Amino acid sequence: MIDRFETTPLPRRIPVTVLGATGLVGQRLIALLAEHPWFVLAHVTGSARTQGMRYGDAVRWRVETPPPSAALDLPVEPPTPAASLAGHIVCSALPASEAETIEPLYAAAGALVFSNASAYRMAADVPLIIPEINPDHLAALATQRQRRGWSGALVTNPNCSTIGLALALAPLQRFGLRRVLVTTLQAASGAGYPGVASLDLLDNVIPYIGGEEDKIETETRKILGAWSDTAFAPIPADAMRISATCTRVPVRDGHLETVSVEFDERVTPDDIIAAWQAYAGEPQQRQLPTAPPQPLVYRKDAARPQPLYDRLAGHGMAVTLGRLRPCEVLDYKFVCLSHNTIRGAAGAALLNAELAYARGLLA
Amino acid sequence: MIDRFETTPLPRRIPVTVLGATGLVGQRLIALLAEHPWFVLAHVTGSARTQGMRYGDAVRWRVETPPPSAALDLPVEPPTPAASLAGHIVCSALPASEAETIEPLYAAAGALVFSNASAYRMAADVPLIIPEINPDHLAALATQRQRRGWSGALVTNPNCSTIGLALALAPLQRFGLRRVLVTTLQAASGAGYPGVASLDLLDNVIPYIGGEEDKIETETRKILGAWSDTAFAPIPADAMRISATCTRVPVRDGHLETVSVEFDERVTPDDIIAAWQAYAGEPQQRQLPTAPPQPLVYRKDAARPQPLYDRLAGHGMAVTLGRLRPCEVLDYKFVCLSHNTIRGAAGAALLNAELAYARGLLA
Amino acid sequence: MIDRFETTPLPRRIPVTVLGATGLVGQRLIALLAEHPWFVLAHVTGSARTQGMRYGDAVRWRVETPPPSAALDLPVEPPTPAASLAGHIVCSALPASEAETIEPLYAAAGALVFSNASAYRMAADVPLIIPEINPDHLAALATQRQRRGWSGALVTNPNCSTIGLALALAPLQRFGLRRVLVTTLQAASGAGYPGVASLDLLDNVIPYIGGEEDKIETETRKILGAWSDTAFAPIPADAMRISATCTRVPVRDGHLETVSVEFDERVTPDDIIAAWQAYAGEPQQRQLPTAPPQPLVYRKDAARPQPLYDRLAGHGMAVTLGRLRPCEVLDYKFVCLSHNTIRGAAGAALLNAELAYARGLLA
Amino acid sequence: MIDRFETTPLPRRIPVTVLGATGLVGQRLIALLAEHPWFVLAHVTGSARTQGMRYGDAVRWRVETPPPSAALDLPVEPPTPAASLAGHIVCSALPASEAETIEPLYAAAGALVFSNASAYRMAADVPLIIPEINPDHLAALATQRQRRGWSGALVTNPNCSTIGLALALAPLQRFGLRRVLVTTLQAASGAGYPGVASLDLLDNVIPYIGGEEDKIETETRKILGAWSDTAFAPIPADAMRISATCTRVPVRDGHLETVSVEFDERVTPDDIIAAWQAYAGEPQQRQLPTAPPQPLVYRKDAARPQPLYDRLAGHGMAVTLGRLRPCEVLDYKFVCLSHNTIRGAAGAALLNAELAYARGLLA
Repeated sequence: MIDRFETTPLPRRIPVTVLGATGLVGQRLIALLAEHPWFVLAHVTGSARTQGMRYGDAVRWRVETPPPSAALDLPVEPPTPAASLAGHIVCSALPASEAETIEPLYAAAGALVFSNASAYRMAADVPLIIPEINPDHLAALATQRQRRGWSGALVTNPNCSTIGLALALAPLQRFGLRRVLVTTLQAASGAGYPGVASLDLLDNVIPYIGGEEDKIETETRKILGAWSDTAFAPIPADAMRISATCTRVPVRDGHLETVSVEFDERVTPDDIIAAWQAYAGEPQQRQLPTAPPQPLVYRKDAARPQPLYDRLAGHGMAVTLGRLRPCEVLDYKFVCLSHNTIRGAAGAALLNAELAYARGLLA
Repeated sequence: MIDRFETTPLPRRIPVTVLGATGLVGQRLIALLAEHPWFVLAHVTGSARTQGMRYGDAVRWRVETPPPSAALDLPVEPPTPAASLAGHIVCSALPASEAETIEPLYAAAGALVFSNASAYRMAADVPLIIPEINPDHLAALATQRQRRGWSGALVTNPNCSTIGLALALAPLQRFGLRRVLVTTLQAASGAGYPGVASLDLLDNVIPYIGGEEDKIETETRKILGAWSDTAFAPIPADAMRISATCTRVPVRDGHLETVSVEFDERVTPDDIIAAWQAYAGEPQQRQLPTAPPQPLVYRKDAARPQPLYDRLAGHGMAVTLGRLRPCEVLDYKFVCLSHNTIRGAAGAALLNAELAYARGLLA
Repeated sequence: MIDRFETTPLPRRIPVTVLGATGLVGQRLIALLAEHPWFVLAHVTGSARTQGMRYGDAVRWRVETPPPSAALDLPVEPPTPAASLAGHIVCSALPASEAETIEPLYAAAGALVFSNASAYRMAADVPLIIPEINPDHLAALATQRQRRGWSGALVTNPNCSTIGLALALAPLQRFGLRRVLVTTLQAASGAGYPGVASLDLLDNVIPYIGGEEDKIETETRKILGAWSDTAFAPIPADAMRISATCTRVPVRDGHLETVSVEFDERVTPDDIIAAWQAYAGEPQQRQLPTAPPQPLVYRKDAARPQPLYDRLAGHGMAVTLGRLRPCEVLDYKFVCLSHNTIRGAAGAALLNAELAYARGLLA
Repeated sequence: MIDRFETTPLPRRIPVTVLGATGLVGQRLIALLAEHPWFVLAHVTGSARTQGMRYGDAVRWRVETPPPSAALDLPVEPPTPAASLAGHIVCSALPASEAETIEPLYAAAGALVFSNASAYRMAADVPLIIPEINPDHLAALATQRQRRGWSGALVTNPNCSTIGLALALAPLQRFGLRRVLVTTLQAASGAGYPGVASLDLLDNVIPYIGGEEDKIETETRKILGAWSDTAFAPIPADAMRISATCTRVPVRDGHLETVSVEFDERVTPDDIIAAWQAYAGEPQQRQLPTAPPQPLVYRKDAARPQPLYDRLAGHGMAVTLGRLRPCEVLDYKFVCLSHNTIRGAAGAALLNAELAYARGLLA
């Protein structure tokens, strides 16, 4: 047990810049930062169309709770870093294409950048972090800084459909996880705003989300793999096969996933449920502000988890599991659910920032 | 090629009784019978509440097209068979619990009963028919009549989520189909009316449908198996493993299924698509009125099939397939879609009746 | 300004019984009572099917936030009052037909009964209260007790679609409100659970809700009218004409209403908005726990209020108004929105209970 | 009764160009033209992005029935008229801003242009036609040609939310229609594709549609007014007051409207229903191919019309009415429903074209 009070003295609140603040994930970040004990929203950036506007005028707020009043009067700035951003945190909700060029500018200027974008997730020197699973991948930052000559650094979080799955799988690795077959039923908010047209989702399901299946298959291997001094060692495809089918369903928030798994070892359902329920990591040990006390919640009810009733478990940061039972083809099957714009995006970036801060990386 | 004109002279239209005519599947049967070239709707039965009412007053019509006017004035009768129903066809849309007692009465009275209910699907002497796949299971009727002393007979069709899957798998059996893993995204109409409460489906998905997964796993083995003179020989669980997860999504009609399969043999995607596109059976050869010219339609578009746009393929009797691609865990994965109350229920019973009639079983 | 600390000393928390606790409104009551500063949930009643069960097992929880743990272990009791219920509060979420016989039993036993049911709303000696509007109608309780011989009393709140409208209209009465024409777009939860079938609301609207239009037209006149010593004097139909059309739309919570109004006096839009924004009543003066600080919120945005974003204004107890503009037929038109199961039902009953308690009626 | 066979000899099918063919209304036009007895689809135009593509590749088809195969291979052309388009019909589904410049080019080139766009609806020399109501407004074309020097001509149809209302009101004009108050519940397809984001309509209603209320109020007066030799004489606002509130609901197709009306004369409900049911006009007399035999259908069922079950009445060209009853504020109130992309857009333009052709205007 690490005492965070020794490691993280709090003389002042750390300023945070949110890149891409008017989008859905940016809005969630703004909402999560509203009463944050460590961080304070200092800057928001937006597209050319919104630059110079008041944030409250620029944003089409799509979070169910009202926007925090402190954010409304911030000016929307262009995504151009100040000369020196040492000690500054940047949370990026940029689209991948913009993230690719803009995030490095902030890292070069000295900021710790926590990105939700896919641009650098698979880069050889960029950690892809879920703090409960692979906090030690932060060790890659030394290499990253050296190679790229940055005084700051760049940390990414996984895709929204990867995070719930990876958290469900992490405690099962000890049983020799060999094969994973998943079908996702993903919420509309995963496509951003305006995202999916209502005419495509009213009385319909779309069995395809571009690039998503590949992200699940590749990101999961990097997250569950190791950082070995100089390079990431993702789990080889041979050692753990993952196959995903991704669909979009008429749900606002909450990605539901049906999962089948196969193990090297003999495992009982009780072993699996116990592994899930006991699961905790550095965010829980450090009691990071955004960390859920229990990251994995198993429900016994026959018809759970459901997006509507379970997406806000742990304030949207817990993954809810259910329906564990034998699979006729692999060993077991179950259902998992996570909030795609909280645990799957904004909360993921924020938890990464908290982890880095608590570890003293901001100094 | 069988010439149906020789085997099925049509001196008059055959009278049909629809049991459970006011429910969703009963309504679809009424709609499908409206302009049928061989059959004519003669009687409708309903629950005690509706008996004696005009059908048009008793039914809460939930099919998108208006009810056929000929049906509106029929009296709703109790489900009590007349003394002799030889040469009479009965289509049953009864709930399983009622089907169990009522359907045998009609078969005993001489009718050919085509049931959508689950009550007798797995019975040792009751054929479970998808006419493209296992029309020869009708041979079991001789045994059935002998054992049960019926002058009529009872034929069942599978569950709505089984039919699409079984049709997609049937042409793949030749490749040595060994393992099937399926997740269904099922429409609201599959639960009948009133069925699922709107509060359970607005902005939600339910990852559980009672009994459904077992039906997929057991019915498919019986359908794809053989009738060997005196008994059915379902494919053993060892020979073909099937694992299903069933979910309910906010869609009116059309069950979408994501499927992974594994074969004994080496197969290319082109082999599979060719097998699907060439697939046809006795309903196509006999040109049965309700048979789709092409029972399996493969679409190349990245995001198809979709319930809204594909459920009415082949007037709701064709199964649409798409997204065939390698599976990292089994061999291939794909998506399939079928209309659950047409091909999956009312149309299934009707096509069975047409098959039986064309084979001369009504004499 | 009344100082509630003088009038309502709080030596202990008042026990509350919830009648019909497993339904949607009952669930909302349980949720609202969870951390109530004055009241404590003591008993829950349910139908014969659930009596004797643990509440947590009996209820199909349909509120988005999890059920309060204190409620889960309460036994579901039959709706039979104890011998003496003096000093006891009862909140009733019973269906009207049951309320008619059960609520009087509790009032006779000495309880103050706050009912959401329609059974007694229009009774000559039963007050129909919205605490901001007509708290003085509580004076009718003396007459009620005398006539009925009750030691307790019965207080009702209006129908869910009436409450938002009546609150919007109350501050406009000063302008000589003569005519009101309203169309409602009501949420699915207004019909309870299971309520409206998903097949009736997916891709559909139902332009009819039985009895609802009459309730709006008659209840509003009683609420906005007077209690004159011995009898209620509703506003005569001639003095204020109200016409309602009620529809059901595919929304979970939040009744939206489009309203046109005509006044005797000349009024400017600013007059109306000022009247709304300044509106407050006894609940605000007494700072009742469930009272919203500002009961009427006017939003200037062109496309607000919307159910999704405004139903939780004031924790679901505020009514949101918007789009005030001239009407070509009457004088002005606007849109109003209120949360139908909070301000329109559970919160309404609870606020009535708080009002009565603060006024010392429980002694 | 006019015999169309005398007035409209059919030596060959008339070529039709669809402007803006890839949008939702364009798609409906393509679908309606598929088996048209008089017209044949000859050209389709699209935006710069799609020009040169095969129509089947350019369109994201969003009509429930499959696209007609004949259309799929047409090349998408730029919206540039050929030198002479005499005898050619153009149906325009362009956005208003493009219609403003492009439609006149086609009319100048000799085509009869039937536009669904709003650009010229209120122009002083452009008829705004609903063929059952004001076919004689076509007389304005002589003036139009003279003023503008066109060899062709331009005819417009009203906005989708105006058409259903105007058809419902037309037969009531004889009773001295003085005031009309309407609230619309409009379908998502009314906003085109992609149109409304799913995040704005899942579990939500939007009480605002830009410009829509004004269109209803002004267009209806022009349609129900007269053409007096040289100018249109819309019904003055004083003579018939119309007030509209427009909302968007989560429905795919079908605009539902709640309407209150006031008359100069005393009218009974039977008078009104009789007027609706007897209503027919030149399209019915001429038996135009797209004309519904009965343009106004009154349903007695308490809860009808509903979008899902009534939008396809008369193949989407009939308006369904219901719930006629006294209004406490005006005289009567009722509900009306029409298919917004068929009767309200594509079918409207096509019926105008049929009217013009049948009258011999194409010569």
